[in-house]
Amino acid sequence: MAIKVIKVGEDILGANADQARLNQELLDQNRVFTINIMSSPGAGKTSIIMNTINQLKDKVKIAVIEGDVASSVDSEKINGLGIPVVQINTAGGCHLDANMVEGALKNLPLAEIDLLFIENVGNLICPNAFVLGEDRRVMISSLPEGDDKPYKYPAMFADTDIILLNKTDLQPYLDFNPDAFRKIVYSLNSDATIFPISCKTGDGLENWYSWLESEVVKKKGNAV
Amino acid sequence: MAIKVIKVGEDILGANADQARLNQELLDQNRVFTINIMSSPGAGKTSIIMNTINQLKDKVKIAVIEGDVASSVDSEKINGLGIPVVQINTAGGCHLDANMVEGALKNLPLAEIDLLFIENVGNLICPNAFVLGEDRRVMISSLPEGDDKPYKYPAMFADTDIILLNKTDLQPYLDFNPDAFRKIVYSLNSDATIFPISCKTGDGLENWYSWLESEVVKKKGNAV
Repeated sequence: MAIKVIKVGEDILGANADQARLNQELLDQNRVFTINIMSSPGAGKTSIIMNTINQLKDKVKIAVIEGDVASSVDSEKINGLGIPVVQINTAGGCHLDANMVEGALKNLPLAEIDLLFIENVGNLICPNAFVLGEDRRVMISSLPEGDDKPYKYPAMFADTDIILLNKTDLQPYLDFNPDAFRKIVYSLNSDATIFPISCKTGDGLENWYSWLESEVVKKKGNAV
Repeated sequence: MAIKVIKVGEDILGANADQARLNQELLDQNRVFTINIMSSPGAGKTSIIMNTINQLKDKVKIAVIEGDVASSVDSEKINGLGIPVVQINTAGGCHLDANMVEGALKNLPLAEIDLLFIENVGNLICPNAFVLGEDRRVMISSLPEGDDKPYKYPAMFADTDIILLNKTDLQPYLDFNPDAFRKIVYSLNSDATIFPISCKTGDGLENWYSWLESEVVKKKGNAV
């Protein structure tokens, strides 16, 4: 008789993918364009979300799911902007998964939302392996982290749709080489779109806003 | 009959702690002062190790274990300084564990080493849960990551001995509040020592070097 081998990793990822498909169906039915936003701690996920809310909230109905190991400092900031937000605390867990997002979706008025940001836990490794039901993946890489990060954490750079290269205002004070960064990224992911931005000065954010708005409109249109 | 419940998390951590004790015994027998160095991606782990090697290598015999998800760019840099180095690639794993370190220790001339740096995978979450056999934990937090990081990733700040607060040269260009940072850190960990440093300018590194040298001497002396 053959011995049954349970591969725990594959099993977990398979079950996660099943739940992510259900999340995606629900989001599609409600025509909610959904972004899974990932980065190292402190790269600027919350700042980008808040800038984007301030820019687009009169045109686009936005909601946020906030993932954190602990605390609700970010969701309080976003709630202050009058946007529906659900906080997920992972209690030590290093990534969001599709089940956690399912629970959060139940607490959002999906029929009234055009754009959903899911802010993942700050981690360049594990979040990548767990699909959540998103339309697009956006990762943030910030200049102070160094231009060699795609070499050292290749999986996330390989799987993302958009890379927001943040904190360009610090370029004069750093040894960051943007050409070297691009070269490594494109060797891993020739389809990636890189938007250099600064949340502090606003530089480059118009490219991000216009990409995002057109994707939201596309999803609304496609579903009609 | 009682049902046996296997708690996978506890089981893994218990087995890891057992192996870490064996690593520690081996390192103690050889009087090797061992540092587990942890941070976010790009906070400056490799830069601090390289600066320290350049400063202390004539007085202290140093070796390095390099942990990375992928690549060997850091171990090549360190090898270029003429220091014994073993690379661990975790193949997607988000932290080092005591078994990986055991394998690396077998490849180092422990009897000829005074100081061992174990550079963990860049991640503010999971490495904290896995003891490796180290004498001390050192974490690096860098100014561009923001002063709220201890709120959001409390476990690592609570468990460390030393915090190197790196990239102080960028202070004029950031909104980082050092007093707010200290206040949160001390509320989590009243025993932590914080050394503000800049690997770029060298500011503050003398405090780190002198702490480290005295710890190395203490371990050599205690074991005689």
